[in-house]
Amino acid sequence: MPDPAAPYVIGADIGATNLRLVLADCTGAILGRWCCSTPNARDTAAVVWRMREGVDALLREASLPPDALSAIAAGAPGITNVAEGVVIATSYLMGWRDVPLGALLEAEFGVPAAVDNDVNLAAIGEQRAGVARNVDDFVFLAIGTGIGAGIVLKGQVHHGGVWSAGEIGYMLVPGVPESPVERGQPGPLEGIAGGEGIRSQWRQRWSKELTPLPKEATASEIFDHAMEANPLAQEVLQLAARTLGYAIYNIAMVLNTPLFVFGGGVGIHPALREATRRVLDERRARVQPELVRSALGADAQLVGAVFLALETAAKAAASVAIRQGDAGEETTRRAAGQLPLQ
Amino acid sequence: MPDPAAPYVIGADIGATNLRLVLADCTGAILGRWCCSTPNARDTAAVVWRMREGVDALLREASLPPDALSAIAAGAPGITNVAEGVVIATSYLMGWRDVPLGALLEAEFGVPAAVDNDVNLAAIGEQRAGVARNVDDFVFLAIGTGIGAGIVLKGQVHHGGVWSAGEIGYMLVPGVPESPVERGQPGPLEGIAGGEGIRSQWRQRWSKELTPLPKEATASEIFDHAMEANPLAQEVLQLAARTLGYAIYNIAMVLNTPLFVFGGGVGIHPALREATRRVLDERRARVQPELVRSALGADAQLVGAVFLALETAAKAAASVAIRQGDAGEETTRRAAGQLPLQ
Repeated sequence: MPDPAAPYVIGADIGATNLRLVLADCTGAILGRWCCSTPNARDTAAVVWRMREGVDALLREASLPPDALSAIAAGAPGITNVAEGVVIATSYLMGWRDVPLGALLEAEFGVPAAVDNDVNLAAIGEQRAGVARNVDDFVFLAIGTGIGAGIVLKGQVHHGGVWSAGEIGYMLVPGVPESPVERGQPGPLEGIAGGEGIRSQWRQRWSKELTPLPKEATASEIFDHAMEANPLAQEVLQLAARTLGYAIYNIAMVLNTPLFVFGGGVGIHPALREATRRVLDERRARVQPELVRSALGADAQLVGAVFLALETAAKAAASVAIRQGDAGEETTRRAAGQLPLQ
Repeated sequence: MPDPAAPYVIGADIGATNLRLVLADCTGAILGRWCCSTPNARDTAAVVWRMREGVDALLREASLPPDALSAIAAGAPGITNVAEGVVIATSYLMGWRDVPLGALLEAEFGVPAAVDNDVNLAAIGEQRAGVARNVDDFVFLAIGTGIGAGIVLKGQVHHGGVWSAGEIGYMLVPGVPESPVERGQPGPLEGIAGGEGIRSQWRQRWSKELTPLPKEATASEIFDHAMEANPLAQEVLQLAARTLGYAIYNIAMVLNTPLFVFGGGVGIHPALREATRRVLDERRARVQPELVRSALGADAQLVGAVFLALETAAKAAASVAIRQGDAGEETTRRAAGQLPLQ
């Protein structure tokens, strides 16, 4: 039986490349970090086993006993049934399907566990300890290889009816290809404005007369190059910004969210945000959403996981308190029966 | 002081053309209807005065006394601050700006009043007494002259940070013009898939060799004509359906709402819904939203207004009960002070 009053939690990010863990105290302050390459991710047991290794190392380093944890929360890059703790589908972790990650973690660590999509966790991170602190309605844009959104409405992550809200990489805006996309394949929006899409747009236009940058440049290198006024890099940047700007405009029209937080390896580049800002300025919408850089950067989803774990621990503690309260009340009633008032 | 237990309410729809009122009982059943042409709508006093006339007529017809009402709720085709009862802006009612409609109605009728955007009220109507009964997440599409959406998430209308959520007529999808639109002008989506846009697309393509239908046909006539397999009408229908289908796909990707209710004079035509359905089928999305016809038709916003009025009356009654409860408790305390226990 875990002690819900134990003051430490684990936040985890199961990425396609790296498996990262942090140990945090009851205020959310990070006490230790652990990281390894994500093992053959199709093998969920191997992932949990590496997490066990990491948790043990973190507790040992912090000189904490094995029962110091009250909860664990993990993010995965996929569609996640938060209520049941199941990763329904992901195209990144070699095709996890209906993995009961929450139950696996509870069995391994003996504490309450919670799971969510990594982008949703990043949104929670920014809301609790980042640039969207005290903001009730905002959208976190994770722009890395692909593009996803974590949507916070009235202070809560909006997960949607079948847990796949925020899949904006598939959004159809002017300029994207209209042909249908197979499920699991990159969407039309990320094909132009996601990291892989930006590289691909660059490769299609590249010739060594036009740029000293290699054909296989990264999105960040292309954006840096655009800031140096290289016309080819500018073209690729403007295309990405226009496409992304249209998507943000659409989301703002539908949801009326006043803040968009740019996160992810590609999203934090200032050139993309500036160029997107100009696209939105041109449209003179009633609501001109503010575009800001993620404050937590690559830590956003880990910090979100920490706060989700703290919430999970608090819920478990409350439910124990209610059970103990019931028991206490029963004792009182029994006592009252033995010694009636008046 | 109105009697919050009075069992009748008024629902109103202040349209660009007609001002409609219904009298309903505490179950939401409609007991009487009243309608007139919307007076010079810029003159808000004239609108309220005509509403007075209508309410008096409805009460008289139902043989009810003047104090039989417990609340009134009204919808207007504009951006509405629901918390303060203010119509912020509308392009339809000759440019209302910051009209304190709620306060005007409370002053006139002496009962609590609520206001909301007409499309949001239509969504409430479908949710309480229409085709979205017991559905927590859905989108009501009002397709008339223009296009707007009423978004219901977790059972509540989503109004957005500055009260303008659901302005999807401005959505940017493949095929719409990308040039910025002046505020108050029709948006790019409604320019192709709204009633006026459909008429305009028809006029642009029309020649008397291609169709027996006149150049000035209505959207419904064009759709009927498309169902008779006229190629020109089919082309206009398919263009509207593709554009609308893309918008629905985008909204479903962002919000993961499983149901879209088609309402409004143009939206209820079966040809548009069928053709849009086929566009969505082609895309093989994870979430294939269901497209259904509004059950309440032109009554949707009136029925929504009735239920909003009933909620407003219930809230007023609850607040009176709390005040009376406080008073009762004070009496008890005073009594306890005069006659201590033991």
